[in-house]
Amino acid sequence: MVNERIQALRGEMEKRGMDIYMVPTADFHESEYVGEYFKARRFITGFTGSAGVAVITKKESGLWTDGRYFIQAANQLKGSEVELYKMGVEGVPTVEEFIKEKLPEGGCLGFDGRVVNTAEGQNLEAIVGEKHGSLKVEEDLIGLIWEDRPALSKEPAWLLDETYAGESAQSKMARVREEMEKAGADTHILTSLDDIAWLFNIRGNDATHFPIVLSFVILTQDRAEFFVNEEVLNDTIRAAFREYGVTIRGYEEIYDAVKAIPETSHVWMDCSKVNYRITNSLPKGVEIINRPNPTLLMKAVKNPTEIENIRKAHVKDGVAFTKYMYWLKTNIGKIPMTEITTADYLADRRKEQENFVDLSFDTISAYQANGAMMHYSATEESCAQLKPEGFLLVDSGAHYLEGSTDITRTMALGPITEKQKEYFTIVLRSNLNLAAAKFLYGCSGLNLDILSRGPLWDLGMDYRCGTGHGIGYLLNVHEAPNGFRWKHVPERNDGAILEAGMVTTDEPGVYLEGEFGIRTENELICVEDEKNEYGQFMRFETVTYAPIDLDAVDPEAMTKRERKLLNDYHKMVYEKVSPYLEPEEKEWLKKYTREI
Amino acid sequence: MVNERIQALRGEMEKRGMDIYMVPTADFHESEYVGEYFKARRFITGFTGSAGVAVITKKESGLWTDGRYFIQAANQLKGSEVELYKMGVEGVPTVEEFIKEKLPEGGCLGFDGRVVNTAEGQNLEAIVGEKHGSLKVEEDLIGLIWEDRPALSKEPAWLLDETYAGESAQSKMARVREEMEKAGADTHILTSLDDIAWLFNIRGNDATHFPIVLSFVILTQDRAEFFVNEEVLNDTIRAAFREYGVTIRGYEEIYDAVKAIPETSHVWMDCSKVNYRITNSLPKGVEIINRPNPTLLMKAVKNPTEIENIRKAHVKDGVAFTKYMYWLKTNIGKIPMTEITTADYLADRRKEQENFVDLSFDTISAYQANGAMMHYSATEESCAQLKPEGFLLVDSGAHYLEGSTDITRTMALGPITEKQKEYFTIVLRSNLNLAAAKFLYGCSGLNLDILSRGPLWDLGMDYRCGTGHGIGYLLNVHEAPNGFRWKHVPERNDGAILEAGMVTTDEPGVYLEGEFGIRTENELICVEDEKNEYGQFMRFETVTYAPIDLDAVDPEAMTKRERKLLNDYHKMVYEKVSPYLEPEEKEWLKKYTREI
Repeated sequence: MVNERIQALRGEMEKRGMDIYMVPTADFHESEYVGEYFKARRFITGFTGSAGVAVITKKESGLWTDGRYFIQAANQLKGSEVELYKMGVEGVPTVEEFIKEKLPEGGCLGFDGRVVNTAEGQNLEAIVGEKHGSLKVEEDLIGLIWEDRPALSKEPAWLLDETYAGESAQSKMARVREEMEKAGADTHILTSLDDIAWLFNIRGNDATHFPIVLSFVILTQDRAEFFVNEEVLNDTIRAAFREYGVTIRGYEEIYDAVKAIPETSHVWMDCSKVNYRITNSLPKGVEIINRPNPTLLMKAVKNPTEIENIRKAHVKDGVAFTKYMYWLKTNIGKIPMTEITTADYLADRRKEQENFVDLSFDTISAYQANGAMMHYSATEESCAQLKPEGFLLVDSGAHYLEGSTDITRTMALGPITEKQKEYFTIVLRSNLNLAAAKFLYGCSGLNLDILSRGPLWDLGMDYRCGTGHGIGYLLNVHEAPNGFRWKHVPERNDGAILEAGMVTTDEPGVYLEGEFGIRTENELICVEDEKNEYGQFMRFETVTYAPIDLDAVDPEAMTKRERKLLNDYHKMVYEKVSPYLEPEEKEWLKKYTREI
Repeated sequence: MVNERIQALRGEMEKRGMDIYMVPTADFHESEYVGEYFKARRFITGFTGSAGVAVITKKESGLWTDGRYFIQAANQLKGSEVELYKMGVEGVPTVEEFIKEKLPEGGCLGFDGRVVNTAEGQNLEAIVGEKHGSLKVEEDLIGLIWEDRPALSKEPAWLLDETYAGESAQSKMARVREEMEKAGADTHILTSLDDIAWLFNIRGNDATHFPIVLSFVILTQDRAEFFVNEEVLNDTIRAAFREYGVTIRGYEEIYDAVKAIPETSHVWMDCSKVNYRITNSLPKGVEIINRPNPTLLMKAVKNPTEIENIRKAHVKDGVAFTKYMYWLKTNIGKIPMTEITTADYLADRRKEQENFVDLSFDTISAYQANGAMMHYSATEESCAQLKPEGFLLVDSGAHYLEGSTDITRTMALGPITEKQKEYFTIVLRSNLNLAAAKFLYGCSGLNLDILSRGPLWDLGMDYRCGTGHGIGYLLNVHEAPNGFRWKHVPERNDGAILEAGMVTTDEPGVYLEGEFGIRTENELICVEDEKNEYGQFMRFETVTYAPIDLDAVDPEAMTKRERKLLNDYHKMVYEKVSPYLEPEEKEWLKKYTREI
């Protein structure tokens, strides 16, 4: 079937004189999560993973994906003509290198300019230029051959009340306009969906677990245009937008609107976010001011109302998690449980909470060796039965009107090995040490990461990911620009100075292939500490409230200070969560938050 | 007298039609330490501090200096027309702002282009350009009016034998030429004196405690020119340079040589190091490749021979320091001692050591409150008498043929306060924690700094400087590009990835104005640790061997791990140093390196 689709695509390519067609995995907004409509790369290759790029030439077709998916992709590509190109493996060409090699002199490269960001598009433009060839980016060829393509999502949008958002859309727009003025920009093109949702205090349901509205924005000092499928807006929203002075236009009109921007304009846009077709539509004289969107930092620094709400969201989430953990640990071995049924039980506890909106991402529920796979996803067919022994790693969270949560606990379902206990305790120490940091204003995650990673490095071990990421308010659970990471990774953009009001996860782990995985994740709000002659000191407030399984802790392997940190944390968990529990749950929590 | 000098200068300015003349503090090489010949700014203002810039207009004259020198400068400028401009104080214009304000439209700014670096010179060029004015940089007007100016230093140069340097000049030149080729540079202009000394394995005595030879180098793939006062070279050196294929030319010929570089050349030079007159002499078509000198990293990564030698140098230095510390602590209160006489006693112990070359910098010997001034320098007139109580902070070091040392110890001369003990122990913990770091290759000082600073930050305290700096081999005691610092400071250039073979100091401290200062400084060699599936792990070898005063340590305030680190360190000190001591010194060292 894949081969037939590729043949159909080649037919369309031939009609247009294209030699190569590229199909990446993206929506029109460079979102981390994309809706069903956008899964064109899956359609044309059969590979279902979350990351990958397909390239089709007249004679060949290839799929590029990363280490997480080598095995899955190889399986799913079997029987098709698509070849697997393993990204990052020595000797394997990159997509760009492949295109450079295969594009004939004077040849034509095609892709849908809406699913490629500007920076990437300009790279490809340069490659085509070297070959004196041409680019065609106005058409989505997959759309022409994909007969039963799911419709573009048009779920109802809704306004997030200011009691939750803490700041009006007008105030936010005024702040953005102020930044534009400072930057010498008369126009701002905003296409990232979480930035738009934040700016207008609007939410929707156009991508799985990512409550946004498919839309674009063009902002000037005296105009604001919101490009959106009008069907998704109700009268309340229309009235609100009239009040904000925002004009509503059709979702696809953005490209024509961009063409009408005066040539003398100075346009602020983030070229790693804005799609190539938009940039390509700009009149030639326009000066592009390419820098992160002004909303990026504004959105990351949560306002006092949001902070207050986030604390409430975490109490609810902690109650749900504690109820689940109590049930899990008291019933394991007594009733049948799988990775999925227990995840469902947890989801149900969250859904019971007031103002629950959605899960904030697909729950990772990974038993024993499955926990060693950082992005494990259980399926109905293959998921593990839980036994009263070893570790269950659960990484999960929810969106509430009061904010989004992301918590990981690793729980002993019965006896565990000495090794498991040893590593569990190390991961706990890592987590506690970072959370207890006090530091001068000006530090970024780069400075603090070793507090968490150090105990593992001391043993010659590591986890192959950052220690933590920023988290949005009822938005993306992976939010720039804050994070904890020891090495600068440009595309992550998570090395910002830690500002009071930023919320970042603290999630060190140990992953032993074929054996088990451990991760302990709390969220930390950055807050101001004392200010004195040395400067402004900062610290963290831990805002995740759920017990860390004492059955897996070796107190002897902790310093006095670390034990105190854990005891203080558990005391807080009990105080926050216990009022909302049933007596037997409360009793259980008392025991599991006891001093050690 | 200063006023008369300024008048004389104005006379010379007038003859040349200059409106403003600037006199910075620098030699022709942007060296950290400059010889007497170069103290032109001192001559024209009377201010003797190590940093400052003088600007003279037709009617005004100003001196810019930093916070270290506000009081001293105010005193020394008294009675002259020179006004003090406090750098970094709000509302005080910078040198550039001042020049911008005072330079009339179409006016002329003059300075000796040899004592201003290229980057700075280009800044001033831009300012003058805005005023449609002119620059004159070919003449040293101070030289015309300074009658009894000390001669330019021309101390004998000498070759550092390969048994000490570990690599031949030919091999080093070949490596530099390889880097030039990679960078697309056909020519390299090298003017920083420690880079030149390292490249040619040559040393001299042309700046206090900085054993270099005033010189310049132009290197191409087939030529090498060494611009130096020929008098300083003996026949052995001449023969060696002939063998290296290096042509010797006069020190001042560099400017004409630069003029003769072909217009089509690609010249690698570090614009923050090469003086403006050199750059200004380049033919207009020349392409400048502005990046750090290739020797910078090569020189910082000590080779195995150098490392072996450095260990030997530190044993000698440790013996000298231990003898001094024994004498100090056993004789205090019995014989008269001052900050200076005890520093002299220490210097004498170093001079007794084989292959001693020089002290590596002016010893800081600071009693009690004087220790709170980081750059305190005792004078014969004002220096403190030592009493059998409180802290003496001593920061000192030496150049040996086997390398340079830099060590700080804070010693209790008798009873100390609880507060002194508390802070001494914290500084010790900071020092030990950083030295014990194990980390993945790729870390820089930015990642590790918090290990040292953390214990102080926990108390809401800080020290206002980096935690450590790189150190040269019989060269500059402050050597780029490695260091420990939490914040990126561009002009420090000390954030390089820590490579095996780099040597960096570890010197946290506490400085309480009017009370006391504490600093404990060891040198750390970066070495490889295990390599496994997570990557290449790195750690440090502490290479400074002298006791840390146990009289000032509170073992109760240390963790078990920290006590073990100290005990292990002291055991090593005893093993390395004791064989070279007299019996009574040995007995004393046994006690002062005991387990706690």
